[in-house]
Amino acid sequence: MCELLAMSANVPTDIVFSFTGLAERGGVTGPHIDGWGITFYEGKGSRSFKDACPSSESHIATMIKSFPIKSELVISHIRQANRGGVALENTHPFMRELWGKYWTYAHNGQLSGYEDKLTSLCFLPVGDTDSEQAFCWILDKVLEKFGYKAPEDLQSVYRYIAQLADQIRQFGVFNMILSDGEFLMNYCSNNLCYITRKAPFGKAKLIDTDVVVDFDKETTPNDIVTVIATRPLTHNEQWNILKPGQWTLFRKGEVVINHLEKTD
Amino acid sequence: MCELLAMSANVPTDIVFSFTGLAERGGVTGPHIDGWGITFYEGKGSRSFKDACPSSESHIATMIKSFPIKSELVISHIRQANRGGVALENTHPFMRELWGKYWTYAHNGQLSGYEDKLTSLCFLPVGDTDSEQAFCWILDKVLEKFGYKAPEDLQSVYRYIAQLADQIRQFGVFNMILSDGEFLMNYCSNNLCYITRKAPFGKAKLIDTDVVVDFDKETTPNDIVTVIATRPLTHNEQWNILKPGQWTLFRKGEVVINHLEKTD
Repeated sequence: MCELLAMSANVPTDIVFSFTGLAERGGVTGPHIDGWGITFYEGKGSRSFKDACPSSESHIATMIKSFPIKSELVISHIRQANRGGVALENTHPFMRELWGKYWTYAHNGQLSGYEDKLTSLCFLPVGDTDSEQAFCWILDKVLEKFGYKAPEDLQSVYRYIAQLADQIRQFGVFNMILSDGEFLMNYCSNNLCYITRKAPFGKAKLIDTDVVVDFDKETTPNDIVTVIATRPLTHNEQWNILKPGQWTLFRKGEVVINHLEKTD
Repeated sequence: MCELLAMSANVPTDIVFSFTGLAERGGVTGPHIDGWGITFYEGKGSRSFKDACPSSESHIATMIKSFPIKSELVISHIRQANRGGVALENTHPFMRELWGKYWTYAHNGQLSGYEDKLTSLCFLPVGDTDSEQAFCWILDKVLEKFGYKAPEDLQSVYRYIAQLADQIRQFGVFNMILSDGEFLMNYCSNNLCYITRKAPFGKAKLIDTDVVVDFDKETTPNDIVTVIATRPLTHNEQWNILKPGQWTLFRKGEVVINHLEKTD
């Protein structure tokens, strides 16, 4: 499996604290040694850093911890390979352009029997992971439904993507994070949680390494910052644990849709 | 204007020597202070490093010089903004996926009167540079001609792209570098040159900073490495200067097409 991390905030914020915890899981406190990646949106642009080596040993990961990049939206992933070899082309997050926006995606889980079902034409995988194939299938379906011009209501696109995720979940575990740079969506199959930090800010202590941060000293009273992770990253805070089939859409750190699957 | 740098090699090679020269032009020996980027292909995968700050001051550029990434194909660009503000989304190289391959592109020059001529539908610019708009137009035209399945003969695609570049050149200066990860194409409007280094290797001395490298100590006798640049990067070597309209296609460091426009 893998671990996911994402952030949505209303001001450019550095994610070093959370990334420091996540990176430990890539070889120290966790077995996710088959590469890692992180994407930062800055305005409409985005940049990704990737490595096919463990995050706990990566020079690039060290640089990201040393020279924090401030961003309103971040997606990160550390990988424990199941489908697809250890290679740069199989390293998340994956990115494609649609409607003049960069869409970024990362997946935790494993799919089976999907190969000839989740096929696509316009967006094609470069590597050979189940994750990237599912991403390309989602984008193809979105293009088929909405066409080459972006709809005014982008939330309707995310509602449709949630329906597609419901279908993908039939093939296995599908915890997913997706963004167009404005909205940040998470979709839970079995392991996903989030926390929204806002004033009054307190102290937080990482589970995976001995680091404490006092957010009160790092923030202003207007800051709203949501962090999403596969498993809680801190000891002393209350994380929202998502249920299977639940998904959430964030914008500028705040929930805009929180959809909990109705059960009979 | 801007400066371009690219490499095609038959073995994974580090580009630190050439990048060190280029990076100096981003604020020290040249005025290209409006951002820089570099893309490395590793197998089918690729990764890019970008900054909207001058390359001579960038922490990320320093890291790339300190922890060399070995790659068979590299494209780099330092920017002096003309069309489009200083922002990450306007920083080259630009990348799109087509046919399950990552296509990477960088442009030196400036276009005028192109806005309503070089328009596209399937691939859309994220930023607002003439460069990215021309790239999207090229990919749309390629998709229109060859469809969603890659032709067996990829060289025919590059021949077609050269025809498209001839059309773009009508709008201004268009020195361009493009790759699908296997082939590397350069197209010259007025400033582009390349050098192919192979055994017997000698010493080379950078123009922009006081660095000498003895390639004989850094290579094996079978290595073939081509470096493309806007202007020669070394003093003591013979660079091939391209003529207006000339374009070259490389694979694994060697020329596969060298097309010189016929004149009446």
